[in-house]
Amino acid sequence: MSTTVLNQKNFSNSTAQVDEAAVKPLPNSRKIYTTGSRPDIQVPMREISQSDTAASIGAEKNPPIYVYDTSGPYTDPSVKIDIRSGLPALRENWIDSRDDTEVLSGPNSAYGKERLTDPKLAQMRFNLQRKPRRGKTGMNVSQMHYARRGIITPEMEFIAIRENQRIETLNTQDHELLKQQHPGQDFGASLPKLITPEFVRDEVARGRAIIPANINHPESEPMIIGRNFLVKINANIGNSALGSSIQEEVEKMTWAIRWGGDTVMDLSTGKNIHETREWIIRNSPVPIGTVPIYQALEKVDGKSEELTWEIFRDTLIEQAEQGVDYFTIHAGVRLAYVPMTAKRMTGIVSRGGSIMAKWCLAHHQESFLYTHFEEICEIMKAYDVSFSLGDGLRPGSIYDANDEAQFAELRTLGELTKIAWKHDVQTMIEGPGHVPMHLIKENMDLQLKHCDEAPFYTLGPLTTDIAPGYDHITSAIGAAMIGWYGTAMLCYVTPKEHLGLPDKDDVKDGIITYKIAAHAADLAKGHPGAQIRDNALSKARFEFRWEDQFNLSLDPDKALQFHDETLPQEGAKIAHFCSMCGPHFCSMKITQDVREYAAKQGVTEDQALQQGMAQKSKEFKDKGAEIYRKL
Amino acid sequence: MSTTVLNQKNFSNSTAQVDEAAVKPLPNSRKIYTTGSRPDIQVPMREISQSDTAASIGAEKNPPIYVYDTSGPYTDPSVKIDIRSGLPALRENWIDSRDDTEVLSGPNSAYGKERLTDPKLAQMRFNLQRKPRRGKTGMNVSQMHYARRGIITPEMEFIAIRENQRIETLNTQDHELLKQQHPGQDFGASLPKLITPEFVRDEVARGRAIIPANINHPESEPMIIGRNFLVKINANIGNSALGSSIQEEVEKMTWAIRWGGDTVMDLSTGKNIHETREWIIRNSPVPIGTVPIYQALEKVDGKSEELTWEIFRDTLIEQAEQGVDYFTIHAGVRLAYVPMTAKRMTGIVSRGGSIMAKWCLAHHQESFLYTHFEEICEIMKAYDVSFSLGDGLRPGSIYDANDEAQFAELRTLGELTKIAWKHDVQTMIEGPGHVPMHLIKENMDLQLKHCDEAPFYTLGPLTTDIAPGYDHITSAIGAAMIGWYGTAMLCYVTPKEHLGLPDKDDVKDGIITYKIAAHAADLAKGHPGAQIRDNALSKARFEFRWEDQFNLSLDPDKALQFHDETLPQEGAKIAHFCSMCGPHFCSMKITQDVREYAAKQGVTEDQALQQGMAQKSKEFKDKGAEIYRKL
Repeated sequence: MSTTVLNQKNFSNSTAQVDEAAVKPLPNSRKIYTTGSRPDIQVPMREISQSDTAASIGAEKNPPIYVYDTSGPYTDPSVKIDIRSGLPALRENWIDSRDDTEVLSGPNSAYGKERLTDPKLAQMRFNLQRKPRRGKTGMNVSQMHYARRGIITPEMEFIAIRENQRIETLNTQDHELLKQQHPGQDFGASLPKLITPEFVRDEVARGRAIIPANINHPESEPMIIGRNFLVKINANIGNSALGSSIQEEVEKMTWAIRWGGDTVMDLSTGKNIHETREWIIRNSPVPIGTVPIYQALEKVDGKSEELTWEIFRDTLIEQAEQGVDYFTIHAGVRLAYVPMTAKRMTGIVSRGGSIMAKWCLAHHQESFLYTHFEEICEIMKAYDVSFSLGDGLRPGSIYDANDEAQFAELRTLGELTKIAWKHDVQTMIEGPGHVPMHLIKENMDLQLKHCDEAPFYTLGPLTTDIAPGYDHITSAIGAAMIGWYGTAMLCYVTPKEHLGLPDKDDVKDGIITYKIAAHAADLAKGHPGAQIRDNALSKARFEFRWEDQFNLSLDPDKALQFHDETLPQEGAKIAHFCSMCGPHFCSMKITQDVREYAAKQGVTEDQALQQGMAQKSKEFKDKGAEIYRKL
Repeated sequence: MSTTVLNQKNFSNSTAQVDEAAVKPLPNSRKIYTTGSRPDIQVPMREISQSDTAASIGAEKNPPIYVYDTSGPYTDPSVKIDIRSGLPALRENWIDSRDDTEVLSGPNSAYGKERLTDPKLAQMRFNLQRKPRRGKTGMNVSQMHYARRGIITPEMEFIAIRENQRIETLNTQDHELLKQQHPGQDFGASLPKLITPEFVRDEVARGRAIIPANINHPESEPMIIGRNFLVKINANIGNSALGSSIQEEVEKMTWAIRWGGDTVMDLSTGKNIHETREWIIRNSPVPIGTVPIYQALEKVDGKSEELTWEIFRDTLIEQAEQGVDYFTIHAGVRLAYVPMTAKRMTGIVSRGGSIMAKWCLAHHQESFLYTHFEEICEIMKAYDVSFSLGDGLRPGSIYDANDEAQFAELRTLGELTKIAWKHDVQTMIEGPGHVPMHLIKENMDLQLKHCDEAPFYTLGPLTTDIAPGYDHITSAIGAAMIGWYGTAMLCYVTPKEHLGLPDKDDVKDGIITYKIAAHAADLAKGHPGAQIRDNALSKARFEFRWEDQFNLSLDPDKALQFHDETLPQEGAKIAHFCSMCGPHFCSMKITQDVREYAAKQGVTEDQALQQGMAQKSKEFKDKGAEIYRKL
């Protein structure tokens, strides 16, 4: 604790540096960009090159594999990263040329002005040269609004290219093997074979997907959240009153996106929330989400009953003008639902939900988030901030899963979704929580029903309560399943859940675990191209291309480290066996021997086994096909 | 590598010692024994005591929680452990008094005799005083045989008591809250409210459950594997030609059972397999499984084509007389199925399957495991070794999931199950492997159909191939799901899968991960009493009883460690907030405040919120129940 407080004090905008670990290129990978219909649409991907199959088993060329890349310019060696100046504003021209926004003279929020002029903050303030931007009076600048008017924005085209991951370039015979995949079970999703810009537009227009893209976060690389796209994951970071510094939070963000975080939520509740957020947004190529009520509560010294609509509204504007891409707003925690939680095992476990429940009870009034919901929509559409309608009454224990309070709130979230859509405000819905496996699907089904397919964004769910220290795993089980059923984005859970704030190691564990869950969901849904990476990695494994196997994995560093713990010699990585079984026992080696043996019978390649065995099989049948034949 | 070879050389039966970490009592836990109908039925359980609820929120007494305990005498401070003499033979009298076995003058297998008399092995040989035992001529000593004759053995009664975990003692008002649980979805299982010895007998008689209990492993505490009982997990250990020593393997076993391993498979393929196994069995309170073909292959220097039925048969007898409780036998890998694997991405990935496929091709003959299956049954029933019919053709990649080869073998395993049952030999069936989520249920459905509900025992399945280094997680997702669908035992996968041999840390990670999967499955099936531990832990969490929360968790050490990383002061463990959110933000604290606030309105306890809010809710409705009411 003392260390982190110290770090905070030592933090200085003149000396802040990028985490060296975040800018190291990934092994055998290079950053490539696919150009869209105009030169300023440059869609980043990671290309993983592979070695050739050994001559003894075919001397095949193995194509490079393209994977979705959330790491932004950090992994591009040609870009010089300086976190003091932030990332390039790649969307600025797109936003500007739509001619529906105006550049303000400075922050509009009272709090934003105060922080900007407070001399005590000079050392930690991000030196932003750009002024905030807002929709011109009466203008709605949301991607949903454009979509509904039939406009395909550069963001939409960028996303279409990004989602396809160059699947269309895999055309040769070899690629056919890699492209093979099981037909999925998609539970009514509409997964096209190839994502077009028009498909993106249509999905956004009907509310089935969102593009979190605040006009004040032009540094972000467009991405989409919707059940008909790749399943996404979110990483939570943020300080608390008890620890962490700006430097550490920026490092958690760059670490999270390196390993695959599609969005990052800054859940800071400690000191200097405003400044911390500024540093994160300016350096983030992924959308940033927040829970504005946390900061509003800080402004009233933690006394929830002193919260007001005015303080909350000012906080929304403050954060919208910094560039937050989506707000979690617990507008579904209505006064009448609070008593429904009285008989629960663990009451209200959502921080935002608790704050609002306390406010409602203290005032005996309906939540101001609910009564002012249309005013909130007006703010959202002036900056294109998306709603993430918070599940303030989500279950915090298996006992409380799928109860009256939870589903009452979900119905209200459905009602609010329709209000948001009336304003062309992009909306997703947050979901549980702690839910045993057999009750997970009901959550998805009811969400689809009540919220008309607005994207679902769930925390886990955790499938048991009994493993604190391992809740990334208890929840990955539920996350994979609900992702399969149709959830669009999975909010990660780290090993520290219930016990403490995640550090960098926990962030990585959470991210990799959730990449697994999201990818398992893509495979089960039958998302086009999802199986390519599995196929390539398994082919490399079968052919003892160890380095390729590591490089294609979600965490090449760990795969290599684990392998080297038993067999550290460089030679072992091309050996035809591994430390698990040794040379005699390797099943993959034996299988290759089997194939070679059959090939020696004089028939060619693949057909060897087929023909050789068909003949023997015939002999077997000719002799009576009896199991226990007399000799 | 050099270290482990050294360890092996240094190992000595005169100085071998138990791992100190394995005999440390678990926090706030004590070993208790429940006595059955006779004094020598002493069923171990772990009792976790809890502190009282704080006076400010009810001053409630919280009952002790009983959990299934696989750790044997190691966690009983009254037992002095000396691994040189092994565990007490608790079943010896039961076996002896059945009067259907005879004590042999020494090992019957040629190999067993050879090892016993080899002077070079003197230093590493376990000093077993007891002679091997075998069923008298013509006698079948399997638990299935007794069950079918209507006999309830002491093993069956032991199991009934063990499975119930004293659920019947939870009778007070407080216990009602803890006993509440969601009705499950059991997919056609038959879960009784309380397990009786007669139910155990009946399940074993119809082949729906097995009790792996070799008469030469009297040290084992009886346990059962079947879909109508708690889902079990297995931990694989074992050396390879490249590493590990006897001492290390014994430590992995004691470490595995400490954290919840229900059975342990010794998959050694390295040096001194026979002696390593002896040390493991003599010190194991849980059933031990092996794959005898591994050792048989060692005996022919790794040349699978030189394997013979005679060598294999001698190996079965050798291991049966040491006390192995179940044998994985890949008798379903038939000659005709080998060509079906030719088009696979990863061929045959089961070591046993590969060995047998190679043998079949080399000889152009049906597998001797298949042709000699009834002779194998004769051996199994003379010692009560259970079959674990191996899935030699399981898929090793997502690409290969649910293919022709895999299901052809499964049908053969069903056919062999019926032959085994004809001999009253206990049988379970092994399952995959790598399977995407949406293809998992088909595996379970076909297994139930073809194998008439014989217990299914699966490896994972892994739901994606792309995360080497994290395959405990890729597979826990599949394991939890297939456990829910009806799989009786889950074979763990450690983080080292595909990369190297697990060390002790990996063993623990694998075990805890699989305890999570198994427990999530029990909850989803609605196994009676499964939710008690979740309820107790969540209640402790809500009431800020930190120590109770840690103690009730699957890994109290890690939960405590993670908590203390941020808030190491002893005081923090009774504080009403934690490091995640700090004092202002703790949602659980706020929820408690909400309840207290409501209580102040003058109504009592639980009803406070209900009544107070019902009144306010009425007011709200009276005023028109409009969302945006004019002020």
